Amino acid sequence: MYTLYSMRRSGNCYKVRLALAQLDIPHELIEIDILKGETRTPEFLAMNPSGHVPLLEVAPGRHVAESNAILWYIAGHTPLFPDDRADRAEMLQWMFFEQHSLEPNLGAAYFWLALVKGGRELQSHALEDWLQEGYRALGVMEKHLATRRFFAAGRYSIADIALYAYTHLAHQCDFDLASFPAVRGWLRRIEAQPGHVAMDWQPQMAAAQ
Amino acid sequence: MYTLYSMRRSGNCYKVRLALAQLDIPHELIEIDILKGETRTPEFLAMNPSGHVPLLEVAPGRHVAESNAILWYIAGHTPLFPDDRADRAEMLQWMFFEQHSLEPNLGAAYFWLALVKGGRELQSHALEDWLQEGYRALGVMEKHLATRRFFAAGRYSIADIALYAYTHLAHQCDFDLASFPAVRGWLRRIEAQPGHVAMDWQPQMAAAQ
Repeated sequence: MYTLYSMRRSGNCYKVRLALAQLDIPHELIEIDILKGETRTPEFLAMNPSGHVPLLEVAPGRHVAESNAILWYIAGHTPLFPDDRADRAEMLQWMFFEQHSLEPNLGAAYFWLALVKGGRELQSHALEDWLQEGYRALGVMEKHLATRRFFAAGRYSIADIALYAYTHLAHQCDFDLASFPAVRGWLRRIEAQPGHVAMDWQPQMAAAQ
Repeated sequence: MYTLYSMRRSGNCYKVRLALAQLDIPHELIEIDILKGETRTPEFLAMNPSGHVPLLEVAPGRHVAESNAILWYIAGHTPLFPDDRADRAEMLQWMFFEQHSLEPNLGAAYFWLALVKGGRELQSHALEDWLQEGYRALGVMEKHLATRRFFAAGRYSIADIALYAYTHLAHQCDFDLASFPAVRGWLRRIEAQPGHVAMDWQPQMAAAQ
């Protein structure tokens, strides 16, 4: 069984928790608090030299890091993964776009504005850049979604999960999606997928039902 | 035949040119000058809404963007691509690391310091952050390579190509690799791979031989 090291309020971790829930894949969840330095201990760094969650143990002593690499690992041969080679490349294209152009801006703004007490004052010099570059990324997404229901392969895939994680948190970190109607429609489509769970969902909720 | 839209002095484009050369894959090369705005024309944005090179046309009217997604597309079923699922995930892990933690720092520093006239003055406020975060990424790589010859799967793969592109340019943008001996040894191993070509290599060099 997989072991997932995860922080509940991290969008990157939510991606993996959402995919595991939607695919109904059993796993043990270990909650990590990055604000308490729990990813910078020698034990954690031995598992992931980057010092980040999420981190998935896929076999005893064998770990996969980076949220989108984990998504790729767990979703292979499932309905969240297209069959065609060019479709898969398109899916990866949007997953790299997410880590390069969206997450460093919306993710950073969310972390400092929504999670860290006093973060707005600490990062006031950076906020303008995050907003400018984040809106640029959202503009690329809006244009793409204007004529498409999902990001890649004409269907719901892990590319959508990757991009959903921080986009659905935009309103919590100073971004306004009012002028991004296609993005807002896509967010609703993702939330309507069978087995979708919210970011504050926990496995024991299902067990208690 | 593939068509690659590429800029000669871009590290992201060099990744793809290196892999195509090393795999001996025929392609047409179209030189794009991003400094002249050639990726922001309506025609280019219709092919890639992000407005970036490299961009690979894989079939008439069908394009793959993002350098590492292109590497993934062209290298499948070649010696640059491991067979095992966990090995492939490890390879992708380092490719996402590259786009998230290395390229935004070394790539940005290289672009503004080595390519743009007057860039150092324009970006003086950002350089300190690029150096700090870039050195942090290089530190993660150094630790990983201290006990390994390559980044993933115990062999040369597209993860190495992805990370090589900007790491080998570090000395051109204020980074000093003196205290990263494992990284320097790895750079030499990459350059010793059969079919390796330098960044200023051009296909007509081979044709003229």
